[in-house]
Amino acid sequence: MQPLGKHIWAIAEGYIPSTSHGPAPELTSHEAACLLNCADTPAKANLMIYFTDREPAGPYEVEIPARRTLHLRFNDLEDPEPIPRDTPYACVLRSDQPIVVQHTRLDSRQAENALMTTIAYSEG
Amino acid sequence: MQPLGKHIWAIAEGYIPSTSHGPAPELTSHEAACLLNCADTPAKANLMIYFTDREPAGPYEVEIPARRTLHLRFNDLEDPEPIPRDTPYACVLRSDQPIVVQHTRLDSRQAENALMTTIAYSEG
Amino acid sequence: MQPLGKHIWAIAEGYIPSTSHGPAPELTSHEAACLLNCADTPAKANLMIYFTDREPAGPYEVEIPARRTLHLRFNDLEDPEPIPRDTPYACVLRSDQPIVVQHTRLDSRQAENALMTTIAYSEG
Amino acid sequence: MQPLGKHIWAIAEGYIPSTSHGPAPELTSHEAACLLNCADTPAKANLMIYFTDREPAGPYEVEIPARRTLHLRFNDLEDPEPIPRDTPYACVLRSDQPIVVQHTRLDSRQAENALMTTIAYSEG
Repeated sequence: MQPLGKHIWAIAEGYIPSTSHGPAPELTSHEAACLLNCADTPAKANLMIYFTDREPAGPYEVEIPARRTLHLRFNDLEDPEPIPRDTPYACVLRSDQPIVVQHTRLDSRQAENALMTTIAYSEG
Repeated sequence: MQPLGKHIWAIAEGYIPSTSHGPAPELTSHEAACLLNCADTPAKANLMIYFTDREPAGPYEVEIPARRTLHLRFNDLEDPEPIPRDTPYACVLRSDQPIVVQHTRLDSRQAENALMTTIAYSEG
Repeated sequence: MQPLGKHIWAIAEGYIPSTSHGPAPELTSHEAACLLNCADTPAKANLMIYFTDREPAGPYEVEIPARRTLHLRFNDLEDPEPIPRDTPYACVLRSDQPIVVQHTRLDSRQAENALMTTIAYSEG
Repeated sequence: MQPLGKHIWAIAEGYIPSTSHGPAPELTSHEAACLLNCADTPAKANLMIYFTDREPAGPYEVEIPARRTLHLRFNDLEDPEPIPRDTPYACVLRSDQPIVVQHTRLDSRQAENALMTTIAYSEG
């Protein structure tokens, strides 16, 4: 299958709520970058995380295997450092081959969860 | 009416919750690809479904009649195999003529439903 | 101010829930096409509504004055015919000068409202 | 880091609910433009706010420092005038260097919050 997508992706609205209602992990408040690699070779990507009042964190390195999707929770990023909760951030992802990126947040701070999603901004 | 849209579309964030609250089918937790064919000839499209840890499923074949919209629920796909619930997936749709694709999820796992939508990623 | 936007816009996911909770009109279940005309001349646009199993309805004609936004509720369209409730539809909007279109639904069928939005698909 | 994004961005669906449930400020009903500046120099941007029935307000001036994100709440804009609540509006942002803009609303008028987001419309 031929590659599909772009090399550079950005999400400007990042925020992981620190509290949750409902069973974990599926209803834990979280933010995800859903990555799709349609190609027949693995894609290597790195993420940089931008903040309001400090220098960026990263790079965070991820690999998306050939013909696979990876629904990456920002909650789970640990290396080089975890993403702080209740803190505005943004994300730029650069991949060595075209992929597709969609951003989603599930917010379960209150009793009933809220959802939002968008295809991320892409270039190149 | 002249065709409108693109030939290739991708949704990276797929997930069908297995539980629901409220009357079926309208408030059943579901995920949909809403397809619009403005042209005066039917569009033939096929979907491939990508997973985290197995080879893709498909192709799933759908036809959108001339001057019609088809709000396709992923819940209803059966051939060649149903989409598993509570499982991250992604989708690539290829059409033989331009169409427009919008992705929506209604999540009614908790008492009050949540909604999200985005125009899918397009090429060609 | 110079024009901004595109001439042709599409929304594939249309659906107006027939029931609501909460005070009207602000919390009535509704679907809107939010139209922005930055130019110094009025924009004339027409909408065609597509269905699953019948020929399209329209054209519906709207005008967006110079330097104004129009948050058009599909619920309010009457001429040439109202949009049926609880019925999947899609929409194509064509404008005589560039505008920007964003799609939103507020669903208050259950006690707590749900929201979704996306910039519509654009061409030309 | 090289710049990423576009110079002109538009949000057509603006609306700040006047009421809220839950702790302030994080669960106050609000609308945000999340701005990301990946470049090594600050970005200067101005916003114009469009209404249904009056001339636009603005310009509102903001600066996004180098390698930072700014999650700008429309609720907080004061100069030259606050944005009225419960009133449809739209927004055009022009920046002197490329940035990325994502639009989000949190609506907590009812007991459980609702969320929506989209990458804004971009040009140039």
